[in-house]
Amino acid sequence: MSESPRRPRIYLAGPEVFLPDPIGAGARKKALCAAHGFDGVFPLDAELDRSGLSKAEAARRISLANEALMRSCDLLIANMTPFRGVSMDVGTAFEVGFMRALGRPVLGYTNTPIDLRERSEMWRAGGARLPFDADAPDVSVEDFGLAENLMIEIAVTESGGGVILTSVPAGAEMTDLAGFEACLVQAKRLVIGAD
Amino acid sequence: MSESPRRPRIYLAGPEVFLPDPIGAGARKKALCAAHGFDGVFPLDAELDRSGLSKAEAARRISLANEALMRSCDLLIANMTPFRGVSMDVGTAFEVGFMRALGRPVLGYTNTPIDLRERSEMWRAGGARLPFDADAPDVSVEDFGLAENLMIEIAVTESGGGVILTSVPAGAEMTDLAGFEACLVQAKRLVIGAD
Repeated sequence: MSESPRRPRIYLAGPEVFLPDPIGAGARKKALCAAHGFDGVFPLDAELDRSGLSKAEAARRISLANEALMRSCDLLIANMTPFRGVSMDVGTAFEVGFMRALGRPVLGYTNTPIDLRERSEMWRAGGARLPFDADAPDVSVEDFGLAENLMIEIAVTESGGGVILTSVPAGAEMTDLAGFEACLVQAKRLVIGAD
Repeated sequence: MSESPRRPRIYLAGPEVFLPDPIGAGARKKALCAAHGFDGVFPLDAELDRSGLSKAEAARRISLANEALMRSCDLLIANMTPFRGVSMDVGTAFEVGFMRALGRPVLGYTNTPIDLRERSEMWRAGGARLPFDADAPDVSVEDFGLAENLMIEIAVTESGGGVILTSVPAGAEMTDLAGFEACLVQAKRLVIGAD
């Protein structure tokens, strides 16, 4: 057998780092990556020994370690499922922009079939305005037929992919990986060239 | 008089593009930029003639034009005020990540003094869970004493700035520019070197 070539590295962006068992969530995604010929890189891989560190210094080290991890990766797959509001997690959005600026493919999935416009309308209909929120009835809602803000979604389509929308059972929004696997198939086509 | 040197260009990231009068909102920020020795660049500056374009093609052109505008800028100031949820607008978060990856300073302000942890707790206490949202009671809340997700806030502090938190009257979350002006003072120190 010939020596194995280096497998393309995928940065696994998403709010799974906030799950009760983030290591387990990362391991599930990494196993799927391996099955498709990739190395999955989970943000927590960079987590450092925080003992003795102030909160501010811990935050700084995690952020810089994650930025370095992104630079070490060939592409990114984002969990774009809405998180604490109408849209995806903002740390994940930052990471999509970061990799996009580096010119590397960004792919993504969301575990709701409801598009951005309808989610925004549901948000307003709920009527529970948060006292810190800048939205107002006369603020326009993007109407491009997209799943997410156009800066994010177009970055995905310009990468050669398409945002995967999946309807999942209630409670499985954070853990269902069917959409993630569909992104891996896109990644394979884009990066490895297999069909 | 000697010829004027090129003024540093600031990309004006934020959800103001969704206001009823985005041109006016952009003009107010640009005037403040000029008063501090900068050229302000508002995302709508890139808006193209959309007549005859499909929604998908319009979204694509706006996104690519904004990416090109960012590459033409020396730094970014983000309006990080929460938008339709606990956190800032995700298009803005994408743009902060984009400029950060390019190695250019990113600065930011938010028109609420309430930090991310407390906002997340207020969100949950509200109890109006959106049917598409991935948050759940056992999902952890970042507790680093920060105004926003650590990837965003550390990008600002590593740029040499600090996120500006301002308490503004209800209804002025999207339009109050005191925090924006404080960012311009930071920008002047960082980019022009003046105090």
